[in-house]
Amino acid sequence: MTLIIALDQDSSKASSIVGMLCSVASGFKLGLPLLLEAGAKIACRLRMMCPEKLWIADLKLADIGSTMKLAVSQLVGCVDGVIAHSVVGVEGALGELKEYLEQHGVKLILVVAMSHPGAAEAYNRLLEHNVEVAGRLRVWGVVAPATMPDIVRRVKSFLPETVILSPGVGVQGAKPGDALCAGADYEIVGRSITASSDPLKAARDVLAEQRRRLGECRASR
Amino acid sequence: MTLIIALDQDSSKASSIVGMLCSVASGFKLGLPLLLEAGAKIACRLRMMCPEKLWIADLKLADIGSTMKLAVSQLVGCVDGVIAHSVVGVEGALGELKEYLEQHGVKLILVVAMSHPGAAEAYNRLLEHNVEVAGRLRVWGVVAPATMPDIVRRVKSFLPETVILSPGVGVQGAKPGDALCAGADYEIVGRSITASSDPLKAARDVLAEQRRRLGECRASR
Repeated sequence: MTLIIALDQDSSKASSIVGMLCSVASGFKLGLPLLLEAGAKIACRLRMMCPEKLWIADLKLADIGSTMKLAVSQLVGCVDGVIAHSVVGVEGALGELKEYLEQHGVKLILVVAMSHPGAAEAYNRLLEHNVEVAGRLRVWGVVAPATMPDIVRRVKSFLPETVILSPGVGVQGAKPGDALCAGADYEIVGRSITASSDPLKAARDVLAEQRRRLGECRASR
Repeated sequence: MTLIIALDQDSSKASSIVGMLCSVASGFKLGLPLLLEAGAKIACRLRMMCPEKLWIADLKLADIGSTMKLAVSQLVGCVDGVIAHSVVGVEGALGELKEYLEQHGVKLILVVAMSHPGAAEAYNRLLEHNVEVAGRLRVWGVVAPATMPDIVRRVKSFLPETVILSPGVGVQGAKPGDALCAGADYEIVGRSITASSDPLKAARDVLAEQRRRLGECRASR
């Protein structure tokens, strides 16, 4: 299973999406807009609808340790992982967060590169630092953009044992399978499934295309 | 007035702090932990208790444009400004956010440097890029750490017309006045006031110390 659904829309819509896609998705990524609208408690409510899948809070945390810990404390018990930014560094920030999450059985997932064009200005030039931080902290997963398969390949070569999650499939321009063929473990898809008139069919189409592409790219190795 | 109160704690505590400090604070900064606990709607409820001051949502946004816009859309009408990270760059991210905020009369405030030790690893080495982005986007304000007055001085020299807000006073180690003397317009103080047994006295003490230090440092110029 290789598909994580990004939920950024209103909470009633999110509930209906979770109900429809629980059987086909590997997991769900709860975006900041949704968590702000409904409060962190929505994570528990949605999770109860599909408890066995992977639940990730995408806060894109980028703050000092004490603030990040206070933020995630509200999600402990409701999500399996939280997303933070590698770029803020370890001491006084991610080091404290990692320790706290470990104590509470929550996975840390670090953004090491981003998918929008402006990321090339500065953010993605920190790729080696960001990947080194992820390695140093032995995080469970990293986020790298499906729109930039070369970056996914580099991350995979630096961190062969770390789970790679790739957003940017669909509206942002990457095709299903692009990131998987480059070494990602999951592709994160939002609007092209959740805003579709038939989200279940759209999700199945993405999964079928992922399988087809993976077959192709594995055959050509 | 030079004091902004950081509210990161539970919402009932936050209400009582706003009630106590409305007359002495320049404004209030609502942290992500508080907004997650209570949902974005708490911004409007708190603001009604002290409507004339500066209200800032400290989401430390660091995402693609569409996600950042969706997050702040829930705060429009309730806050005067939102905080995002310069490091994510303009195209597809801060450029879109700035345009959206301008349409809705909300100020953009960009973090250009951070206050924890780990920020020296990579984040604060991007200072020139971050300041350049703030200048290019003509943002209302920037965030630079009170714990690093040299950085505040550099930011002031690069962006003399931009409002500088400095966190890190109190628990994080900077003293009231450190950042003001280096060129900041506001110092942001959280726990050393909000967790005090007498928040009003603690806030007045900070204000008195800021005035004393400003008197000293202006006299020595």
